[in-house]
Amino acid sequence: MPELRKDPVSGRWVIISVERGKRPSDFAMRVSAKKGGFCAFCEGNERTTPPEILAFRPDGSRPNTPGWTLRVVSNKFPALNVEGSLNRTGDGIFDRMNGVGAHEVIVECADHNLTLSSMPLKSVEDTLWAFHHRITDLKRDVRFKYVLVFKNEGDEAGATLEHTHSQLIALPIVPHLVEEEIQQAKQYHDYKERCIFCDIIHQERTNKARVISENDDYIALAPFAPRAPFETMILPKRHESSFSPDGRVQQMAHILQRTLRQIDRVLDMPPYNMMIHTSPFKNETNEYYHWHIEILPKLTKIAGFEWGSGFYINPTPPEEAARFMREAEI
Amino acid sequence: MPELRKDPVSGRWVIISVERGKRPSDFAMRVSAKKGGFCAFCEGNERTTPPEILAFRPDGSRPNTPGWTLRVVSNKFPALNVEGSLNRTGDGIFDRMNGVGAHEVIVECADHNLTLSSMPLKSVEDTLWAFHHRITDLKRDVRFKYVLVFKNEGDEAGATLEHTHSQLIALPIVPHLVEEEIQQAKQYHDYKERCIFCDIIHQERTNKARVISENDDYIALAPFAPRAPFETMILPKRHESSFSPDGRVQQMAHILQRTLRQIDRVLDMPPYNMMIHTSPFKNETNEYYHWHIEILPKLTKIAGFEWGSGFYINPTPPEEAARFMREAEI
Repeated sequence: MPELRKDPVSGRWVIISVERGKRPSDFAMRVSAKKGGFCAFCEGNERTTPPEILAFRPDGSRPNTPGWTLRVVSNKFPALNVEGSLNRTGDGIFDRMNGVGAHEVIVECADHNLTLSSMPLKSVEDTLWAFHHRITDLKRDVRFKYVLVFKNEGDEAGATLEHTHSQLIALPIVPHLVEEEIQQAKQYHDYKERCIFCDIIHQERTNKARVISENDDYIALAPFAPRAPFETMILPKRHESSFSPDGRVQQMAHILQRTLRQIDRVLDMPPYNMMIHTSPFKNETNEYYHWHIEILPKLTKIAGFEWGSGFYINPTPPEEAARFMREAEI
Repeated sequence: MPELRKDPVSGRWVIISVERGKRPSDFAMRVSAKKGGFCAFCEGNERTTPPEILAFRPDGSRPNTPGWTLRVVSNKFPALNVEGSLNRTGDGIFDRMNGVGAHEVIVECADHNLTLSSMPLKSVEDTLWAFHHRITDLKRDVRFKYVLVFKNEGDEAGATLEHTHSQLIALPIVPHLVEEEIQQAKQYHDYKERCIFCDIIHQERTNKARVISENDDYIALAPFAPRAPFETMILPKRHESSFSPDGRVQQMAHILQRTLRQIDRVLDMPPYNMMIHTSPFKNETNEYYHWHIEILPKLTKIAGFEWGSGFYINPTPPEEAARFMREAEI
């Protein structure tokens, strides 16, 4: 019998379709081998990207020259423009505003052949620091209400350049999905006076079936109602409303890389999307919301049912996905 | 400057990213040619599908034998099971219920080589009648609250069989996206005492830039804030809360086929998803919700930004899409 499961945070239902039950080997989606050729993100090609906004240069080299270990630049084809005012206006029944925002690319390391799962741990730590520095800087711009950090790995997951990179988009509105999570989390907090994520972590640590790994500070889980096979969440074990690597960056980098290595091992380097959900700027420190990383391997297609309903059909129960991940030899 | 636009019904924002402005020829996604081979939906192979639930047999032939022009059968690999009770239960903080529902396939015509855009108009009418008959029948099952009718055309849009077909899933819960639309439409109605869709139609008919075509009873529009390039909506011009082809099936079939032909012409037969949104069973006749068809060509990838935010980046303004569609020679 398939099972309908409701995600307590988003309110979204998913169908865990065991009749279509799929094991890891049923998903053939490997990220295609890197083709090489000219790469704007490689060392020596700094002049072909927009000027750098931030870079880590252990050798003290000059901006936009070789010698960096991580670089942040504006997206050459930004979805939003950093200049201008919002100018929100109505048009009869409709609402529009200027597409003001920042769209940046974080080139996570200089080596074209590495990925977030294969690069040295220090580069993963640097990537997390870069997210933090850029969020902190963009927060000062009063036009922005939220910064969404995300990563597309592999063509099928929407990546257009193969050199390992993450992106961020600073937005003048809080994203719909984040707002929904916050509303549900607030309602739960109003009623229980506890954080819903803290309660989920407590229940998952007791039950264990969906726990993938944990260290002193973080836990990796297969969510109870995942949108897609092998969806994974990483959360701080103690309540923390906003993303910050302060004091625990090594632990955070370690569990993130470990999780990505498990996914690579179990699913043979699948394409994936990664997103960070954190509290919006206007209420960064609160008792109800709990920042987290979401990782979504791209193994299934979004079709008419999903587009029409907002529900997802997932052929792999998260308990099985978590077991495969735990047992992966990495 | 890109533009942020808010859909007044779903509350969803989209980024109309003119810097990435794409014309139809920039999207290369043609549905691959039909490969042929054994097809369970072809005439003569009736015994290889589950038994038929409904069929149109102008020659009076017997069930599950040749002679039909349209067949409805259960999905051989259903996402939900039609037998059983819901048995909704809590599991600590989580909610689950048995995956009870119906999952049916509408084989729209017997000819393997036709599509909804190329089949005779009579077959499109029959398809709409089949939707209606199945919804009416499934409504009698008290376990179900909603029937989502949808179609996946082409592998990229999630179709696994190439013989032209639609699907429906009867659900024990009202889908999240439909519920969101209803809530927004209700709020609007509470305030304005008018249907938001009727107001949108009125404004679009005055403005004309996003109107694709209309006939006596229906209108095809590019929505103001489309999730993807060439997204199209078809609505009845007069207020109607629930899907019904009664009395106007020819007009409905005609505008649907015309729209699909325009999409095929402009985008060279792209993969697409089609969904019907209608009022849930418990409140089928109301003043605030207005049923409609949504057509979403599959031209762009859903990546980390969309997964993380619930916003969409659309490189083609709907005014341009509507103009290309209007000017298509079909």
